Amino acid sequence: MAQKTQVGIIGAGPAGLLLAHMLHRQGIGSIIIEAQTREAIEGTIKAGVLEHPTVQLLDELGVGERMHAVGFEHHGIELAFGGKRHRIDLHELTGGKSIMVYPQHEVIKDLVAAVLANGTTIEFGVRDVALQGIEGTRPSIRYTLDGEARQIECDFIAGCDGFHGPSRQAIPAALRVEHLKTYPCGWFGILCEAPPSSDELIYAQSDRGFVLVSTRTPTVQRMYFQCDPSDHVDNWSDERIWAEFHARTEGSDGWRLKEGRIFQKGIIAMRSFVCETMQHGRLFLAGDAAHIVPPTGAKGLNLAAGDVVLLSGAIVDFYRDNSHQSLDSYSARALKRVWRGEQFSWFMTTLLHDFDGEDTITRRFRRAQLDYLVSSRAASTSLAENYVGLPFEGSA
Amino acid sequence: MAQKTQVGIIGAGPAGLLLAHMLHRQGIGSIIIEAQTREAIEGTIKAGVLEHPTVQLLDELGVGERMHAVGFEHHGIELAFGGKRHRIDLHELTGGKSIMVYPQHEVIKDLVAAVLANGTTIEFGVRDVALQGIEGTRPSIRYTLDGEARQIECDFIAGCDGFHGPSRQAIPAALRVEHLKTYPCGWFGILCEAPPSSDELIYAQSDRGFVLVSTRTPTVQRMYFQCDPSDHVDNWSDERIWAEFHARTEGSDGWRLKEGRIFQKGIIAMRSFVCETMQHGRLFLAGDAAHIVPPTGAKGLNLAAGDVVLLSGAIVDFYRDNSHQSLDSYSARALKRVWRGEQFSWFMTTLLHDFDGEDTITRRFRRAQLDYLVSSRAASTSLAENYVGLPFEGSA
Repeated sequence: MAQKTQVGIIGAGPAGLLLAHMLHRQGIGSIIIEAQTREAIEGTIKAGVLEHPTVQLLDELGVGERMHAVGFEHHGIELAFGGKRHRIDLHELTGGKSIMVYPQHEVIKDLVAAVLANGTTIEFGVRDVALQGIEGTRPSIRYTLDGEARQIECDFIAGCDGFHGPSRQAIPAALRVEHLKTYPCGWFGILCEAPPSSDELIYAQSDRGFVLVSTRTPTVQRMYFQCDPSDHVDNWSDERIWAEFHARTEGSDGWRLKEGRIFQKGIIAMRSFVCETMQHGRLFLAGDAAHIVPPTGAKGLNLAAGDVVLLSGAIVDFYRDNSHQSLDSYSARALKRVWRGEQFSWFMTTLLHDFDGEDTITRRFRRAQLDYLVSSRAASTSLAENYVGLPFEGSA
Repeated sequence: MAQKTQVGIIGAGPAGLLLAHMLHRQGIGSIIIEAQTREAIEGTIKAGVLEHPTVQLLDELGVGERMHAVGFEHHGIELAFGGKRHRIDLHELTGGKSIMVYPQHEVIKDLVAAVLANGTTIEFGVRDVALQGIEGTRPSIRYTLDGEARQIECDFIAGCDGFHGPSRQAIPAALRVEHLKTYPCGWFGILCEAPPSSDELIYAQSDRGFVLVSTRTPTVQRMYFQCDPSDHVDNWSDERIWAEFHARTEGSDGWRLKEGRIFQKGIIAMRSFVCETMQHGRLFLAGDAAHIVPPTGAKGLNLAAGDVVLLSGAIVDFYRDNSHQSLDSYSARALKRVWRGEQFSWFMTTLLHDFDGEDTITRRFRRAQLDYLVSSRAASTSLAENYVGLPFEGSA
């Protein structure tokens, strides 16, 4: 079976869904295919900090209602080190901006609902996805659904299929420069039934390693501690987990992390990855298909949103003006913001984690940098403006 | 021969001379001993960028007259990368502060003259310096001068004798924690007879490595390019040197470095070093005896000045109030500013140099950081406030 559309979108993650929704609002049709089921993408619990520009974008697109009702707007974050907590007042330092703690799978729910409501097709559970003819003017996506061979013929393919998807691989290897950094640490994450330990996120640095104290709902908390990436969750009893959290977060100010029943444990790897280029012929990559950040800067979904703002604008320009100019410059423009987010994510990661085998002077530099960050308005402002998100290039 | 004084100062570099001068103004006597001759310390050409707090200090001490007459006050620096130059307006970003380009050996001339004029003894050309009794209340310095054994008995010893001097070694090794980082690069420096190529210092980053374009006088220029620290000056003809400078500094804007007769060449190593502690018993370290920075941040002399402000204040407190409190906290207070300067010097070094064997993503992070630095007011301000110098702790 062959379907025809203007833009074939591979992947119903934040990038693909956002793109379909933005294109529809400009009268451009698309079809999304997704390897997982709807239940899986809506039900897989993921972290989520939305930057100010992302929140603005979702509002402008009319999909921000539940986010404001259920999410938590935070006006600051805390940096904890040397036994003390130091607040970075994001709101005051950035002239009124803030972040929204609202998990990625909730964003996906909102976007799936919006995309389906406007009549866009999403085909879930597809297999054997292959991109064809991307160097010509009428590329196509072949795949199978329930064992049946299918095809989407389109003007453009948007590769929004994440790090492991087939889209990036469809760019000839000789034309791709892939930059990768693997960090010698992972994050051990838990979900637990407990009240929030803090009104705001706490980024804690200690000699035992990093901790992030985050929140999900008034009764469910998300927390992480830095671990060996080859460690196993089975090595960590609940008692050992809480002992580690307490040892890394508690200082002279009497503050204490609140415990609760742990109902999920997992270990995630930490890496930085960027594919240059993000475009080949009629294929355009967006989001994790082109770049991965370590989660320390909370930038993943937000970088995807920045890509989609540029890509949707470029596709709109093409159909309106019959001009390739915005499309041709998409990769270079997108990569500029991507590298900024990548560099910030690397900075936050190296600022807050300890790494085995570091020399002692590197640890002292880290502490000097933290002391300076919380004592200099300029340095605090630089951190804050990156954390709440630098403006998107181009317009929504 | 035994002499008696309140403070025995080892080393007539900026730290020792400044300390003697500041103590004299508070009625406290000192004697300085120095291994080199007066001609050597005044004639060895050294680089010199004085921070705003250092300039203020020299003015307050009445030794700033020649600095203002002969030195160059700069209101900005330039960062050159990607074929373009970007000005950091230090003056505007820091509320009116600036730096003074005035070489260290000129500062030394001014301080030697001031110290001798106020009657303080400086013994040049001493040998076999040994510190004794620093754990007691009446330490002494033994040394020889022209083959004659001599001794200074004093209340305190100030170790201002640089990285290779005996003072630091007089602290038992078990009580010292020494932090060292050696960078895999050096600076190839030249002095040449040429007009200035730029009104302000240029810090240039390129794929071929770092360049610093500095100035000495309207007819003599000081310039450096990053090199292999094991390279030899004999490998570099004047033609090859100029070709390298041009290749690293010239971009799309038509600006070109001015050549001239090269009359000095040398290679300097790059390292970061800090000794914790800076005090043991009645011995107090100041300046390079306790810490070394790579020259990229232009912090060396300025960190020494910060130490001396604290140390002179602590010694004054002791004689005025018979209190050890300021002396006992000297090391911790001095190290706080030292670590800030060390971290900034490391930051500037890794920001502007390329290192063999780096992964490609690290080079991209560097470029993203440079792009951000010159586009964000907060980030530019952070660079500027560090470059012009954060305030001294305590008062002059």
